[in-house]
Amino acid sequence: MAKPIFVLSGPNLNLLGSREPEIYGTTTLDDIHQHLDQQAALSGDSVACYQSNMEGDLVNWIQKAGAEAKGIIINAGAYTHTSIAIADAISSIDIPLIEVHLSNIYQREEYRHHSYISPLAKGVICGFGAKSYYMALEALIADTASFS
Amino acid sequence: MAKPIFVLSGPNLNLLGSREPEIYGTTTLDDIHQHLDQQAALSGDSVACYQSNMEGDLVNWIQKAGAEAKGIIINAGAYTHTSIAIADAISSIDIPLIEVHLSNIYQREEYRHHSYISPLAKGVICGFGAKSYYMALEALIADTASFS
Amino acid sequence: MAKPIFVLSGPNLNLLGSREPEIYGTTTLDDIHQHLDQQAALSGDSVACYQSNMEGDLVNWIQKAGAEAKGIIINAGAYTHTSIAIADAISSIDIPLIEVHLSNIYQREEYRHHSYISPLAKGVICGFGAKSYYMALEALIADTASFS
Amino acid sequence: MAKPIFVLSGPNLNLLGSREPEIYGTTTLDDIHQHLDQQAALSGDSVACYQSNMEGDLVNWIQKAGAEAKGIIINAGAYTHTSIAIADAISSIDIPLIEVHLSNIYQREEYRHHSYISPLAKGVICGFGAKSYYMALEALIADTASFS
Amino acid sequence: MAKPIFVLSGPNLNLLGSREPEIYGTTTLDDIHQHLDQQAALSGDSVACYQSNMEGDLVNWIQKAGAEAKGIIINAGAYTHTSIAIADAISSIDIPLIEVHLSNIYQREEYRHHSYISPLAKGVICGFGAKSYYMALEALIADTASFS
Amino acid sequence: MAKPIFVLSGPNLNLLGSREPEIYGTTTLDDIHQHLDQQAALSGDSVACYQSNMEGDLVNWIQKAGAEAKGIIINAGAYTHTSIAIADAISSIDIPLIEVHLSNIYQREEYRHHSYISPLAKGVICGFGAKSYYMALEALIADTASFS
Amino acid sequence: MAKPIFVLSGPNLNLLGSREPEIYGTTTLDDIHQHLDQQAALSGDSVACYQSNMEGDLVNWIQKAGAEAKGIIINAGAYTHTSIAIADAISSIDIPLIEVHLSNIYQREEYRHHSYISPLAKGVICGFGAKSYYMALEALIADTASFS
Amino acid sequence: MAKPIFVLSGPNLNLLGSREPEIYGTTTLDDIHQHLDQQAALSGDSVACYQSNMEGDLVNWIQKAGAEAKGIIINAGAYTHTSIAIADAISSIDIPLIEVHLSNIYQREEYRHHSYISPLAKGVICGFGAKSYYMALEALIADTASFS
Amino acid sequence: MAKPIFVLSGPNLNLLGSREPEIYGTTTLDDIHQHLDQQAALSGDSVACYQSNMEGDLVNWIQKAGAEAKGIIINAGAYTHTSIAIADAISSIDIPLIEVHLSNIYQREEYRHHSYISPLAKGVICGFGAKSYYMALEALIADTASFS
Amino acid sequence: MAKPIFVLSGPNLNLLGSREPEIYGTTTLDDIHQHLDQQAALSGDSVACYQSNMEGDLVNWIQKAGAEAKGIIINAGAYTHTSIAIADAISSIDIPLIEVHLSNIYQREEYRHHSYISPLAKGVICGFGAKSYYMALEALIADTASFS
Amino acid sequence: MAKPIFVLSGPNLNLLGSREPEIYGTTTLDDIHQHLDQQAALSGDSVACYQSNMEGDLVNWIQKAGAEAKGIIINAGAYTHTSIAIADAISSIDIPLIEVHLSNIYQREEYRHHSYISPLAKGVICGFGAKSYYMALEALIADTASFS
Amino acid sequence: MAKPIFVLSGPNLNLLGSREPEIYGTTTLDDIHQHLDQQAALSGDSVACYQSNMEGDLVNWIQKAGAEAKGIIINAGAYTHTSIAIADAISSIDIPLIEVHLSNIYQREEYRHHSYISPLAKGVICGFGAKSYYMALEALIADTASFS
Repeated sequence: MAKPIFVLSGPNLNLLGSREPEIYGTTTLDDIHQHLDQQAALSGDSVACYQSNMEGDLVNWIQKAGAEAKGIIINAGAYTHTSIAIADAISSIDIPLIEVHLSNIYQREEYRHHSYISPLAKGVICGFGAKSYYMALEALIADTASFS
Repeated sequence: MAKPIFVLSGPNLNLLGSREPEIYGTTTLDDIHQHLDQQAALSGDSVACYQSNMEGDLVNWIQKAGAEAKGIIINAGAYTHTSIAIADAISSIDIPLIEVHLSNIYQREEYRHHSYISPLAKGVICGFGAKSYYMALEALIADTASFS
Repeated sequence: MAKPIFVLSGPNLNLLGSREPEIYGTTTLDDIHQHLDQQAALSGDSVACYQSNMEGDLVNWIQKAGAEAKGIIINAGAYTHTSIAIADAISSIDIPLIEVHLSNIYQREEYRHHSYISPLAKGVICGFGAKSYYMALEALIADTASFS
Repeated sequence: MAKPIFVLSGPNLNLLGSREPEIYGTTTLDDIHQHLDQQAALSGDSVACYQSNMEGDLVNWIQKAGAEAKGIIINAGAYTHTSIAIADAISSIDIPLIEVHLSNIYQREEYRHHSYISPLAKGVICGFGAKSYYMALEALIADTASFS
Repeated sequence: MAKPIFVLSGPNLNLLGSREPEIYGTTTLDDIHQHLDQQAALSGDSVACYQSNMEGDLVNWIQKAGAEAKGIIINAGAYTHTSIAIADAISSIDIPLIEVHLSNIYQREEYRHHSYISPLAKGVICGFGAKSYYMALEALIADTASFS
Repeated sequence: MAKPIFVLSGPNLNLLGSREPEIYGTTTLDDIHQHLDQQAALSGDSVACYQSNMEGDLVNWIQKAGAEAKGIIINAGAYTHTSIAIADAISSIDIPLIEVHLSNIYQREEYRHHSYISPLAKGVICGFGAKSYYMALEALIADTASFS
Repeated sequence: MAKPIFVLSGPNLNLLGSREPEIYGTTTLDDIHQHLDQQAALSGDSVACYQSNMEGDLVNWIQKAGAEAKGIIINAGAYTHTSIAIADAISSIDIPLIEVHLSNIYQREEYRHHSYISPLAKGVICGFGAKSYYMALEALIADTASFS
Repeated sequence: MAKPIFVLSGPNLNLLGSREPEIYGTTTLDDIHQHLDQQAALSGDSVACYQSNMEGDLVNWIQKAGAEAKGIIINAGAYTHTSIAIADAISSIDIPLIEVHLSNIYQREEYRHHSYISPLAKGVICGFGAKSYYMALEALIADTASFS
Repeated sequence: MAKPIFVLSGPNLNLLGSREPEIYGTTTLDDIHQHLDQQAALSGDSVACYQSNMEGDLVNWIQKAGAEAKGIIINAGAYTHTSIAIADAISSIDIPLIEVHLSNIYQREEYRHHSYISPLAKGVICGFGAKSYYMALEALIADTASFS
Repeated sequence: MAKPIFVLSGPNLNLLGSREPEIYGTTTLDDIHQHLDQQAALSGDSVACYQSNMEGDLVNWIQKAGAEAKGIIINAGAYTHTSIAIADAISSIDIPLIEVHLSNIYQREEYRHHSYISPLAKGVICGFGAKSYYMALEALIADTASFS
Repeated sequence: MAKPIFVLSGPNLNLLGSREPEIYGTTTLDDIHQHLDQQAALSGDSVACYQSNMEGDLVNWIQKAGAEAKGIIINAGAYTHTSIAIADAISSIDIPLIEVHLSNIYQREEYRHHSYISPLAKGVICGFGAKSYYMALEALIADTASFS
Repeated sequence: MAKPIFVLSGPNLNLLGSREPEIYGTTTLDDIHQHLDQQAALSGDSVACYQSNMEGDLVNWIQKAGAEAKGIIINAGAYTHTSIAIADAISSIDIPLIEVHLSNIYQREEYRHHSYISPLAKGVICGFGAKSYYMALEALIADTASFS
């Protein structure tokens, strides 16, 4: 059976839908996960979605993905800008990874403009809200179709 | 019944009383928690005190406070200076938060002079040892009296 | 009739397909323009594609798009990092704009990590080669469907 | 008779109550001085309150306090961020000093985030409006009770 | 016959009147040119007004002015902050030049605070809207009256 | 009767006419004040001119102007570049202020290129010698004509 | 019985042997732990080896070592460069600590050249692969022989 | 027939001979072009010389040279220091390029000390006036003799 | 009669002898003034000694010295590092000035290492306590002997 | 016969044992050289030890080592932080080199934290006093055993 | 007899031909010196060639050249980037100096992009291997022909 | 017999009298040495004067002075700004040292404003030409009178 695509979300993304809706909208992370689930099924793919506020959990899941998944979509939230540990985990694996952000991080604080993940990602998509995830999944499925 | 005030302490504050007493004195974090408990009771308020060395625990408690507490007193210790994740959690909630530090952080290393939390706090109190917490509680109770 | 979507490409993108194929692949800009043309037609939309090595041409086309187009996809190439004039043109118009890059600019020189355009864009997509354009068109059509 | 506590306020604080009320409220500096006067009297203490727009006046009063006062509460306003002369005066005296600010200076311009006074203060309190002064007085009286 | 005064305007100033009216007002660049024309005529002077979105056009006109004009009024727009080529053109000529800006550039983004032109200008006027041009013309006519 | 316009000059401007004439010319500050007096009278306006080497005096006069004047022309001299106190005073008042400099400060030392006043001014005029003041007065009278 | 020496390894070191073998070789962390165990036994010492991807776990173990161990060997991985919390834990204990790295961190990214741990360590050893640990153990045993 | 060598000169170099002769001398660009023409003829080579004040023209000519020339001598003038677009054009071609400057750019403003072109050039020659071009031609002919 | 030498001391120097004696010793400023008085008399010279905590007083005295004195010895204290106004006053006069400091300012905080006065002084003497003044007087008398 | 290992020590290390013993202890450099001599002999190896205060001597010995030695242990002292010439010499040779420091350079001045040598070394050992050399020798002998 | 031209080469250039041939080729410094000797002889000139790894030797030779030579060609190697002493020696003499580098220093480490020598040189030539020296000699002979 | 005072002069000071006389005058270093010799003799003291262009020579002499001299006067020339080795030598000795410079180094290039020696010196004297040495000698003799 085909390996799943891991969809990893970092700190505070569990609040999606309630937190700062003027920036992030009212869609919840569960809504996104369900959409991704259905979207993946269309091409016979599957997703495994995780969220945590712990930096170490993200490191663990990335390592696990290296063995069990065929690709990663990651929105590491605030850890995007501070975690070398997550970047190290990514550089230790050999599967494609796409970095997504709901908001356009370049319209926000200066310290959100640098990402430790971007140089290790296949591509970066930001600013499209929940659609950032869906666009990433579509691209990743196309990209990994031949490996499953 | 009135919502409690969350009192959150970050990494290494569990060592209070044993660690570097020339900077922090001999009062333990338990001593502080008991004092806050009694101080809150005087005005019919209550506190819920937590400490963790985990960045993610602090994120979780701040999110929880957003739903269950009427205010937060936080001494995020070293995470004050490095955690955008904690700052994001704070910016996602709508209750007043006061930042405290036992020592005067401006007398210490350069990298302790910047706080990701301060721009999101109602106020900042530092340098009064355990009293920093008590002053914050007094201010927070006065400030939130009408909301309970 | 519906307004077209402007697709603007900046300096050296006319060389696409011949220049540094290890980074950019062998698809030409004409190939991309044709693909976009067909892709737009599927939803009854149209694209108007331009390329120039002149900073001022891009300023002109952005101004023109403000009056005649319903959205812009722009890959400003090197001007992304140096042109305040292009950014000013964008901030003078009221239609959505998506910034795209073929390569993952965060894997390249430090001076390619800053974009004057990103803070003014709805979203940013980079690293997917020619697909970056196609993903942008899909997102823009969805986004502007109700305005045509 | 016990030595007084000096309460020193710097440039533009004489405008308090009229200037930018959305930041500073409508309480005047005289109101604050009267409150401090009454608050001190409760514990048999006294305050001596001064305000000036002149950097040198603040230097003079700090020197004078070194000889005549048992503590200082200072809100040096804009000189907080620019005056090494005031910092030198503080470092030349041996009585406790608490730095206060009405607003949360960390929510304002970058150049207000650095204070020449903080490293020399016993503690720092900011963001509580006029209460910042009152909290400082309470802390200073407790701290200096045994010296009077 | 007296040499004219060149009035040069840079990128996006052709949009004046339509673009960001909350910053720039509704006067068009043509309105300004007509006003300058009439204003110059009062003292028997004349103006030659040009606008371009091309950096090189401004370089060309400055070189031409060196031979044909008795002074320059320039609002180089975004090129003010990025163009060493325009600065070089100015330093190659011997006639007085006044730099103007419609808005107060010091109230805008940090990168608009530096001008390559200012060190080469006789004077700088900014923040008076269209009047910035008129004040410059008045000053330049007075200054060059004896040379015509 | 109409409120006057305050004309404030900072440190060392009392030396005008004797100091570094190759930069500043031989006109004295008194000459300028007389010219402004007569210029104002033409439109039924009046000026009140002050000079001091004391930072605090300028703060005091700006505060006073807030109550008694209809506008301010200020050449804060060296304090332009160092005084947050003066900037705070300006931000506490609601009347228009124009910043002037005799010399083109952008042709001088790097540390003269930043002004704490500029972001708070209606406009900035520099490099026209004594005429900088006169141009400012003309602009301010036109601007405030309807308020007197 | 003698206190053990704690050997602490941070994020991604559990992957040792599989991850980027061209940098780190094929020895696993278990191999290293077994080697250290046998090496310690030769002098009647013992080691207690831990690894975690969680910053807080490392803080906890360092605190625990302060009470139960006679020395620490730490390879904090990516947290070396970002964790003030770990540094604070180290500064709260009184036993010798040696910092080790498998690779020569000075040949890698700029952000790996700074360590929050180094100023608090007795010594630093890097670049010798697994031997970095063994050299540290030898030095630490010699250094603490008299304390057991 | 042998491919020519392109000799490209950037903004303001058309003024050579009239502009700032104390730095650049009285030789015109035409003089230089004629000298290069004759010098090339000696070895059976030819030059094609272009000058423009437009950044985009230089991009175009570099692209054209990639197809039609056997080498490039470029003095990009002010664009040397600001144009990533020109650098991108250079990195897209496979023929040798020598960067020249008339003056010693290291004796001039700080912002002229960095060149986007130098890292892409075979060599750099500056400070020899018109001879900088001639030395470059000699070196380029020797270097490309075998390719014609 | 010969013009006197002005000896100017800035903020907090009035505390000399009481303040931080471990850095500055127990000699008072009066002691220094008397020593200078007698030292000057030996060569038929005279000194006029002033101290103030006001920046503006120092500006005034420097201006006055320009007209009445034959040289200046200045220890501007904290204003050394912050006052462009004092530097401007110095640059407006034509008599020699020697900068002195009691302590070796290069052994103190980083922000004391820069002086706005040094580039305008004939020479700088620091680190010799009260003798710094005496050495300066000796040098200044020798230097100005022929002008009296 | 086997090639020796060069042990090179830089400026002021000849003072070892007398200079700042609180940092460096009382062991002399001769003591260290003798210890290394005996340590090497145990495995049939030999050392050749040199010290100089001259940067150029170290360059010479490194070049010589490239031809005659099988490895280098270097403590370049102050030149560690300033000498590109020494770094160039190291990069010109093909034998392993270990950088050692007696003290933990990360506990000292900021300017001692950067080493031009580290990126070129096999490994770095610091903070173990004379033992830093012995640990390096042991590692180097093990590493080069097969080459002798 | 005509004064010779000094050709000075700095640290590690004695290794030329053996060291990093992929950057520097196989020509030795002796080869270069012989070529220069013969090249100079063609025009009746002579060269005196020196190389040293000692900064002070280069200072001495430059001083000597000031008295005995008619020009200098210098490749100061690593001292180019660190030696103010060499720059001071150059600024103390009055003969023309050309700076050369074998490699294109702008393609190498950032710290090799700044030269203390360039602002004092007549011209700079880099990137042509040994030919950099020969081009410099040709230029220097032409330049100094009239002085011999 | 009393220990001598070492007078050490660094690179290019041997040229004194011939080099850049507009900055340094025509007095030679020998003249200065003779003056110091006679000046010392007046109080029964002696000087030992050395000059070298070699950094290492200065290190050697400072070490030697630590054992044989009672004080040092040093003008390290260009090494003042670059040599940590010289600073280390100074910090290894226990005799007073005065830093002198002929010119006012604060009027020269930015890179001459920092001295590695100043924080280790008793005092600094600069700007008095040869007299800087004589003033230092006088101060050092007074300071060390009781130690001889």
